[in-house]
Amino acid sequence: MGWFGDTNLIFIDYNGGMSEQNPNIYAATIFVANLVRSGLKTAVISPGSRSTPLTLACEAHPDLEVVLQLDERSAGFFALGRALVTDRPVALICTSGTAAANYFPAIVEAYMSHVPLLVLTSDRPHELRHSGANQTIDQVKMFGGHVLDAYDLSVPSAVDTELVWRNVATTAVRAYATANGVRKGAVQVNFPFRKPLQPAEAAEWLRTRQDRVVPEIRPQTTVAVGSLFPNREQAEYLTQLINRNERGIIVCGPRCPSGDFPAVVSRFAQACGYPIFADPISHVRFGPHALSAPIISGYETWLNGQEPDWESPDVVIRFGAVPTSKWLNDYLAKIEPHTRLHVRGSGVWADDSHLTSQFWQVDELALCRLVQSMIARQPAAWFQQTLAWEDRNWERLTAVMPEQTFDIPLVQTILDHLPERVNFFVGNSLPIRHVDQFGRSRADDWRVYANRGASGIDGVVSSALGMGTAEPDVPAVLLIGDVSFFHDMNGLLLAKESPNLTIVLLNNDGGGIFNRLPIAQFGEPFERLFTTQHGLDYRHVAALYGLRYTAVRTEDELKQALSDAWGAGARIVEVFTDNGVDEGLRRALIGNWRQV
Amino acid sequence: MGWFGDTNLIFIDYNGGMSEQNPNIYAATIFVANLVRSGLKTAVISPGSRSTPLTLACEAHPDLEVVLQLDERSAGFFALGRALVTDRPVALICTSGTAAANYFPAIVEAYMSHVPLLVLTSDRPHELRHSGANQTIDQVKMFGGHVLDAYDLSVPSAVDTELVWRNVATTAVRAYATANGVRKGAVQVNFPFRKPLQPAEAAEWLRTRQDRVVPEIRPQTTVAVGSLFPNREQAEYLTQLINRNERGIIVCGPRCPSGDFPAVVSRFAQACGYPIFADPISHVRFGPHALSAPIISGYETWLNGQEPDWESPDVVIRFGAVPTSKWLNDYLAKIEPHTRLHVRGSGVWADDSHLTSQFWQVDELALCRLVQSMIARQPAAWFQQTLAWEDRNWERLTAVMPEQTFDIPLVQTILDHLPERVNFFVGNSLPIRHVDQFGRSRADDWRVYANRGASGIDGVVSSALGMGTAEPDVPAVLLIGDVSFFHDMNGLLLAKESPNLTIVLLNNDGGGIFNRLPIAQFGEPFERLFTTQHGLDYRHVAALYGLRYTAVRTEDELKQALSDAWGAGARIVEVFTDNGVDEGLRRALIGNWRQV
Repeated sequence: MGWFGDTNLIFIDYNGGMSEQNPNIYAATIFVANLVRSGLKTAVISPGSRSTPLTLACEAHPDLEVVLQLDERSAGFFALGRALVTDRPVALICTSGTAAANYFPAIVEAYMSHVPLLVLTSDRPHELRHSGANQTIDQVKMFGGHVLDAYDLSVPSAVDTELVWRNVATTAVRAYATANGVRKGAVQVNFPFRKPLQPAEAAEWLRTRQDRVVPEIRPQTTVAVGSLFPNREQAEYLTQLINRNERGIIVCGPRCPSGDFPAVVSRFAQACGYPIFADPISHVRFGPHALSAPIISGYETWLNGQEPDWESPDVVIRFGAVPTSKWLNDYLAKIEPHTRLHVRGSGVWADDSHLTSQFWQVDELALCRLVQSMIARQPAAWFQQTLAWEDRNWERLTAVMPEQTFDIPLVQTILDHLPERVNFFVGNSLPIRHVDQFGRSRADDWRVYANRGASGIDGVVSSALGMGTAEPDVPAVLLIGDVSFFHDMNGLLLAKESPNLTIVLLNNDGGGIFNRLPIAQFGEPFERLFTTQHGLDYRHVAALYGLRYTAVRTEDELKQALSDAWGAGARIVEVFTDNGVDEGLRRALIGNWRQV
Repeated sequence: MGWFGDTNLIFIDYNGGMSEQNPNIYAATIFVANLVRSGLKTAVISPGSRSTPLTLACEAHPDLEVVLQLDERSAGFFALGRALVTDRPVALICTSGTAAANYFPAIVEAYMSHVPLLVLTSDRPHELRHSGANQTIDQVKMFGGHVLDAYDLSVPSAVDTELVWRNVATTAVRAYATANGVRKGAVQVNFPFRKPLQPAEAAEWLRTRQDRVVPEIRPQTTVAVGSLFPNREQAEYLTQLINRNERGIIVCGPRCPSGDFPAVVSRFAQACGYPIFADPISHVRFGPHALSAPIISGYETWLNGQEPDWESPDVVIRFGAVPTSKWLNDYLAKIEPHTRLHVRGSGVWADDSHLTSQFWQVDELALCRLVQSMIARQPAAWFQQTLAWEDRNWERLTAVMPEQTFDIPLVQTILDHLPERVNFFVGNSLPIRHVDQFGRSRADDWRVYANRGASGIDGVVSSALGMGTAEPDVPAVLLIGDVSFFHDMNGLLLAKESPNLTIVLLNNDGGGIFNRLPIAQFGEPFERLFTTQHGLDYRHVAALYGLRYTAVRTEDELKQALSDAWGAGARIVEVFTDNGVDEGLRRALIGNWRQV
């Protein structure tokens, strides 16, 4: 397979290796070697005692990056952010007990947004379970239906036969393949280890580590998955649908396929003469392909509670998850196209309006490429009108933008100052909605990420750090609200590992999203119970983690802070806003826009 | 029932109340009213939108304390700490999505240490589940086997019949009773709410709130559980066992029954002529009853890897969970008494040596009281010798205590300076082991708590705050290590609610517990992978949360800091130690002690 092609490894056979070793470490070494052979690059370890065999196996492997994070909740989200960018599984390793329970939020998000994770939980042996033994909980299938699979291995033993070691090897390969399969997500492998946990002989272990010994695996199992290629009938049906319908739109939601999809779907849309409504985290709204793609990105303003001034489409073709924009979703539910086709390779339903007429689990890229070549129709006037509408939207929005400093122009300033190539993580609640509404499509190579599987405000700092460290040479930006930032300050323990990261912290002292909710009219109890005022001065957080810190209250200060930021070390740029004012101005903005 | 006896409530009937109300709020109000009628005093709410009906119902109830904590993980542990002290359920309320997943660590601890919690998770209605809808995950039974029960209610509706409202009422009563039952733990109730979530009419809701309207519940269901009273055969068997055996010991592990148990078991032990090996969190080691009780508290030193100089017991009677002390457990597993009786009202097995000969699920207090009156034997010489051994242990330990400042004398200093009445929370890893080894039994009314169900280092700060706020007039102390402190710094958001709390932070820069592990011999990789150095300066954390802060490096400084502490506002006293030195001195101390 060539995975070890460029490293200097010594392979040992099962029996030869086992005779001198602690069976726990032997099993862990086989397991880790097979994960790396399958493609694993990174293990995020939260230190502990019971996980000693896995920790040592990871540390000794020459081709594995080891990241340490004390807080398992943050570790989980760090791995998630890394896997979001690299699109390959990241391993998590922890000790026994509640340590593993702290992974749960990240595992749920991984399940919902199809991010591959390998959750390697260390456990006590079976004789200590259900017995009141220290730090021993029921870890078997502890994440329920939120993982794609859950294994509980046997306790490694010096009398285990080669069948057991082969099972350890194939479990690693299969767990990796499942996490990274047609539908991606987390897989738990639970490792009961009986003491002793440390190497039988220190000098021998250190020599092994020095010599980069990796146990030989016989057979060197691999798992391969084919492509869900569309059949001829599907291709012909879709071609005819497009040929016969001038008014159609393509909706690219969050988590569209990675790789070439943005370019492929852009060419497909151009051939169809259908505009693409591109979610900010679809990876279709921003990027070099956008130069010539028919992308609509202003719909969050345009559709805001009012009928657009155009004829509604007869065909809606969807890719990815349910879009972030409430207004887009409401609009899609309100119109009456005769065909609503959702194409999703993962096979996971994503339509909470329950209006989809056809759901196809086929490879999105293959379908687009196949049909594009068969389409025989020129784009209609409707298509040009729609694209003109998009341009007009942005012109109007700029024209009516108030002079006052509030969070929307600040977000626009941030977007205007992003580097041409950036990894951009956007927090949930208000930031993602602002970027959705005010992030105009452009050809800059922006990769925008968010945790929109479960849309939690937890774990965002760590996810952004996972993203930032994935490509250390690319500037990385996190835009996050103050409550979400609070939730995962522990993630900052790894901030020094990501000197390319700038954290733009929008501080309105507590969950301004609630100003958008109907409950906002109820006065005092609302104030106390729904806005989440904390009164924290985050300068102290920057000091705690040794990060540069700049407080910003005006647009000019923001511009200055951002121009200082790139490539100059991890930093926090805190932007103070008043959400009560902001929400009023946002509404006025939309109202003014309508009157232009 | 008289629960509302001293408040001015207006009861309304089901139909009259419903006709004007949002059915979600109506259901939530019935549910909360029935929880309060069952005994609920406190709800810990993490703000969100979907939970609006539950939040409003809690806020409007005149007899319910509402605590707000933004981070659900910390909220879970705060509720756990409160319930540990009050021995009654505390409710947790959160919005939909990963919010609930953050409760998982506290729920696991609650399950393992039998702490009653009511986990009220808000959810989207069924038509939005499994559909890709925003912030919607599978919350049904999401905590698996780590809760005692899990309900998923129907979506409240304006056309619901009285049967549905009665079910809401009885579910509340039953969930409370289950959480607070023979075996305590967490119960999840999942509430799907369909929009709108706010009151139908603002003025009407505010009037209702003003007037303290609580819906009438018909019938006003109550659930009562009897006592697991021992039968005559059991009482006679145990009496004869004691009469016939002079050499017996009683082991009181963590989480012995609350209430009068310490006094009752002390009198029982005195009657038996059996010494009590009392765990630091048994509530038996410390307290006024200890004045005349035959308590052994020095065993962690005394039994440290060596045979004690006495005849081993023929009878071991155990109460509570598996003791904290590894040396005590090892000793108990090594000796060969002919009878090992474990008495545990909860019925939960707690013996990882699997040597118990009789396990009785009977009420511990009832059994002790019954048998005590039937015993007819004078304490033997062996009993007096054992107690003399305990005294000699402490004299020797004091004699050989090194002059050098290291963590053990510092822990002794802390113990010597605790107020006569204190709630004392002890962190896991090293602090609980130090208190176990060096906390000599005394008659001061110390209530000592720790999260020893799963022994996690997570959530300890919040648990201590839940403890501290439970009895605001009693001085509260948390002794915690620096890694555990890091894990739950977010808990400090509630520190201002507990001005009685002093946090004594033992900082050895990262998990010195690993110096006790065999892996410590392996040099550099050990240093990096197993000690958990973070390099954080916690003064910034004190500044962030507005807490007083004192750094301490000598015993005199510590004494001064502690004498300033009590009742003067929440504060952090950080004690700097060097764990490499400490562990060496601890070993020397035990060695020297043997030579005296």
